[in-house]
Amino acid sequence: MEATLPAVPLTVEGSSVLHQMFRLRWPAWKAAGASTREEALAEAVAVLGGMEQSAVYSLLGHKGDLLLIHLRPSFEELNQTELRLAALKLADYLEPTTSYLSVVELGLYDSSLRVYKGLAERGVAPGTPEWDREVEEALAQHRKAMAPRLFPAIPESRYLCFYPMDRKRAESVNWYCLPMEKRRSLMREHGEIGRKYAGQVKQIISGSIGLDDWEWGVDLFADDPVAFKKLIYEMRFDEASALYALFGPFYVGIRLPVGELGERLKIGL
Amino acid sequence: MEATLPAVPLTVEGSSVLHQMFRLRWPAWKAAGASTREEALAEAVAVLGGMEQSAVYSLLGHKGDLLLIHLRPSFEELNQTELRLAALKLADYLEPTTSYLSVVELGLYDSSLRVYKGLAERGVAPGTPEWDREVEEALAQHRKAMAPRLFPAIPESRYLCFYPMDRKRAESVNWYCLPMEKRRSLMREHGEIGRKYAGQVKQIISGSIGLDDWEWGVDLFADDPVAFKKLIYEMRFDEASALYALFGPFYVGIRLPVGELGERLKIGL
Amino acid sequence: MEATLPAVPLTVEGSSVLHQMFRLRWPAWKAAGASTREEALAEAVAVLGGMEQSAVYSLLGHKGDLLLIHLRPSFEELNQTELRLAALKLADYLEPTTSYLSVVELGLYDSSLRVYKGLAERGVAPGTPEWDREVEEALAQHRKAMAPRLFPAIPESRYLCFYPMDRKRAESVNWYCLPMEKRRSLMREHGEIGRKYAGQVKQIISGSIGLDDWEWGVDLFADDPVAFKKLIYEMRFDEASALYALFGPFYVGIRLPVGELGERLKIGL
Amino acid sequence: MEATLPAVPLTVEGSSVLHQMFRLRWPAWKAAGASTREEALAEAVAVLGGMEQSAVYSLLGHKGDLLLIHLRPSFEELNQTELRLAALKLADYLEPTTSYLSVVELGLYDSSLRVYKGLAERGVAPGTPEWDREVEEALAQHRKAMAPRLFPAIPESRYLCFYPMDRKRAESVNWYCLPMEKRRSLMREHGEIGRKYAGQVKQIISGSIGLDDWEWGVDLFADDPVAFKKLIYEMRFDEASALYALFGPFYVGIRLPVGELGERLKIGL
Amino acid sequence: MEATLPAVPLTVEGSSVLHQMFRLRWPAWKAAGASTREEALAEAVAVLGGMEQSAVYSLLGHKGDLLLIHLRPSFEELNQTELRLAALKLADYLEPTTSYLSVVELGLYDSSLRVYKGLAERGVAPGTPEWDREVEEALAQHRKAMAPRLFPAIPESRYLCFYPMDRKRAESVNWYCLPMEKRRSLMREHGEIGRKYAGQVKQIISGSIGLDDWEWGVDLFADDPVAFKKLIYEMRFDEASALYALFGPFYVGIRLPVGELGERLKIGL
Repeated sequence: MEATLPAVPLTVEGSSVLHQMFRLRWPAWKAAGASTREEALAEAVAVLGGMEQSAVYSLLGHKGDLLLIHLRPSFEELNQTELRLAALKLADYLEPTTSYLSVVELGLYDSSLRVYKGLAERGVAPGTPEWDREVEEALAQHRKAMAPRLFPAIPESRYLCFYPMDRKRAESVNWYCLPMEKRRSLMREHGEIGRKYAGQVKQIISGSIGLDDWEWGVDLFADDPVAFKKLIYEMRFDEASALYALFGPFYVGIRLPVGELGERLKIGL
Repeated sequence: MEATLPAVPLTVEGSSVLHQMFRLRWPAWKAAGASTREEALAEAVAVLGGMEQSAVYSLLGHKGDLLLIHLRPSFEELNQTELRLAALKLADYLEPTTSYLSVVELGLYDSSLRVYKGLAERGVAPGTPEWDREVEEALAQHRKAMAPRLFPAIPESRYLCFYPMDRKRAESVNWYCLPMEKRRSLMREHGEIGRKYAGQVKQIISGSIGLDDWEWGVDLFADDPVAFKKLIYEMRFDEASALYALFGPFYVGIRLPVGELGERLKIGL
Repeated sequence: MEATLPAVPLTVEGSSVLHQMFRLRWPAWKAAGASTREEALAEAVAVLGGMEQSAVYSLLGHKGDLLLIHLRPSFEELNQTELRLAALKLADYLEPTTSYLSVVELGLYDSSLRVYKGLAERGVAPGTPEWDREVEEALAQHRKAMAPRLFPAIPESRYLCFYPMDRKRAESVNWYCLPMEKRRSLMREHGEIGRKYAGQVKQIISGSIGLDDWEWGVDLFADDPVAFKKLIYEMRFDEASALYALFGPFYVGIRLPVGELGERLKIGL
Repeated sequence: MEATLPAVPLTVEGSSVLHQMFRLRWPAWKAAGASTREEALAEAVAVLGGMEQSAVYSLLGHKGDLLLIHLRPSFEELNQTELRLAALKLADYLEPTTSYLSVVELGLYDSSLRVYKGLAERGVAPGTPEWDREVEEALAQHRKAMAPRLFPAIPESRYLCFYPMDRKRAESVNWYCLPMEKRRSLMREHGEIGRKYAGQVKQIISGSIGLDDWEWGVDLFADDPVAFKKLIYEMRFDEASALYALFGPFYVGIRLPVGELGERLKIGL
Repeated sequence: MEATLPAVPLTVEGSSVLHQMFRLRWPAWKAAGASTREEALAEAVAVLGGMEQSAVYSLLGHKGDLLLIHLRPSFEELNQTELRLAALKLADYLEPTTSYLSVVELGLYDSSLRVYKGLAERGVAPGTPEWDREVEEALAQHRKAMAPRLFPAIPESRYLCFYPMDRKRAESVNWYCLPMEKRRSLMREHGEIGRKYAGQVKQIISGSIGLDDWEWGVDLFADDPVAFKKLIYEMRFDEASALYALFGPFYVGIRLPVGELGERLKIGL
């Protein structure tokens, strides 16, 4: 009977998320003159300081100077945020190098199996109104119970690590062909490693299938950046990652309170 | 006998389609001055407002600021549209980042098998004039019956998701080596998922084999962008996608009525 | 005995071919002023109009504005053509986006097997002077008989489709490990599909192993661009393509008589 | 029992590392005039000369003109270094082409197996406080004993070779699925080749999982650059590399004492 | 016994090699004015004319206008050559598009097996001082005997074909896992094809493991560019290439005597 259960796990979604990476056009910024820089900075500080669910990071390396994370109730508001920033005087000196669009997501493997099996045992078939109603009820309960994790505050940790990732669909190794029970057990093992680092690393997982070029975005927050390396290295040996994870580029930044933006941008040069 | 039937499914084609993605050169646009911007905007609004089968979207993220979809009766008219837009004053501030060329396509797996088998049963061989005439008759009927879907209006939905895709031709997993019956059954299963979302997501499928770098272009239209994620995630577990789909970049935009173009471009800054 | 026959099919070569793709720098072109544009256009029309075996196409999409095909007796003359065009005033407004270098090629699978087997039956071993002389004689005959196809005129069709391609060398699927008889039969089947479209699509195949980044360049010419899609889609199901073809980017253009260049470049804006 | 031992080897970490690659904007540099160049040089020499754990290399080829290695106690200090250099007048003439972020790492396969097995034999389970405490004690001892290698000085050798690399996670060949004993023996064999070149080539290995786009960064230092080729070619045949190594781009530079920077930058032109 | 012989073949190294590819910035070059161009040309001709082991080629297609090959006794001298050229006035109009760094290399499969087996038969173990001394003696003899090929003059042929390549390390097809006897026999077969073209095509093979992004660079020189296609096509069917070769981009150029540089650069326009 189980074979006919849906293969897709239930998910609940929360905040819309946009990551923006910028490179400062240093020569133009320097050439702009101190008063222009001060004016641009003051405006940027005022606008960014007024954005409650946004955070700024000083990026390491050539991938950019600044990384901004925006959490918003909707994509409309993300787009408004983008436009507000593009209109800043400071934006004339910032080159957008990349970005990532996603929505905070919690995957519900345990609940999916419980709900699907419960319905199946009662003879309710997928796609019937009763099935859909009970699934929607379960989702509504999860959305309510998980609201704090679906609409999280951005952790205050000193360091950020962001990367997008896929589940592999190769010829003989294909995540999407695994039975749901297997995927649940792999995700559990994966989650257990995460929990070992709970005191050191916080995370926000966002889904981006249909929204951006990878399937998920991962944000890790820690006060010691070596914790990123240790956590991800340990995970690389679990089956979920060793066999089934494909990783995109990694971005590491240092939290930049808006008040320190001038220092980061070497406003006085 | 069936083994000798053609492997290629019948398709019917409709509107020629061009997607254009543009990034606004913000610094130049800002520097242009209010009256230049107003003039450029007025001209763009007049020209775009007069293009009946075109739609404008405000893109999210660094992939661009504007995405335009043009449906036209022919490639000639698409080229004329491109040129008309390139001549706009506004175009001086728009950098074309990418584009996609295709033609609205409906694949006819059911009809193909019916026609091919019917002809074969009557002893008509592929490539004979009789075969070709009957196939062409069937196509003509489909073109007529499916005209509204072949020459669709662009849905008014608030959100757009566009992505190109291929069917995989790997070493042991190769869509083009599957028997047509198998492909038909995979496409049916795939289509059933789509139908579950019929109330939330509209789609236009266009073919681009021989026209652009992927085999198909997919446009999804919805009022809630999370529906894109849910639909595509669910599909990723069906065999047609899990095993045989390769996805290109994803573009998500918000419908921008031409009258709101000035607001989007921060005309008053 | 056959196992010791050469694996490489005989080929004959004709015109040297260069494809050039250009993007017009629209803002600079517009800013240049009407008289500069007219002067640049007049010079370009005169020079291009005098190049007999060259053709200009208006490209669709962001890949460029113009595609030029040049057929010449030698690479030296291709290089001279490039330089002549680079010196044009118009070239200051054209950005070369890509190009493709190749030589018109006809593969002679049937003849290769006939000649190789004939020699082998007479006990002539590959690499002996007799072998080489007879092979060279066969090639000379083909070069003469096939001269019109080796040094073709560029078809006048309204639409062009150009793409480069490779034969796959994967781990278990490797074109270059197939016996020549097998390759011949695959190429025959492939050619039969091409012949079905003979009335609609003309083609020029050029070889680029050792000359550019893919193994072959394919130019298709048709008055209806949907014919490109139909032909290539049908071919994708034949074994030669389904298993063994790797495709590069596709370029679609509309033939642009030199006299219409001013219109295409919006000379009057 | 061993099957339940952790798969991840212990590592100890030392200096934070940033590689920066720059291309000199030669035309702008030349156009700047002699006095501007002299001033920019003097400032750069003073600042770079004061950075103790930084080294400058003159890169060969188009990948850049200068490569800088910075070793620092923390990522914060790396970021400060980046900012200090970005503020240099010389930076206006330097285009950052790429960079690499990592942390000096020593992998402890032997120790890991010893500690894990010892604990397991005493019935201590992974994840218990006792396990964690003993592991942490072992790490602390290694950090102390290995401090000179964890916080190394940059070797004075004339030539540098830098490249990032991954361990392969393909379908049937997957480093992260090997038992730890096997990985240890492969790393030993790998290390033995390294030791043969000990007199000619020094190395610094840094880990970058979670920090940059590859898993490790490798710096080799030698007085004869052919030693890089010989060492890496020999290693390519050991199982650890032949089967399991994926290599990123290679950068080769010549050590540039800060005092010779003016000569390298052709200060007098 | 043989199983314990080293897997890496002996190689001897000669000239250091740098390939530089440049695109002429035509608009700036034209705008520079005749006297500036003449002055820049005169300087370039004088400097390039004085570089004995350098050659200039006019590239075909968009990959660049000029390709320079430099053979030098050391990487230091290559770096000096780069710097000398960067300081040229002409360099202000040349954009470096790519480059390749390598060292002339001769692989000694036959000799390796002879020496290794001879030593093994006498009971000398790899890595012992005796082994190393005898190997070094063999290498020294080869270096002396092969000096003309290790430090070659650049052939005067009219056409150049340059490409980098790797030996494949895929999952089931891995060059570096083959026994040395097998690799020797594949290289022999490969070499025999090369010898068939000895009268038409000269070659310089350089090694770049640890120096640049591919493992080898191949320079072919011929008076008829179709010979490149014929040679490389024929080789593609030998096992060494069909199964084990991965090819990078191909560059084809026409030898440009320094005295013709002005004509190539359209000095008079």
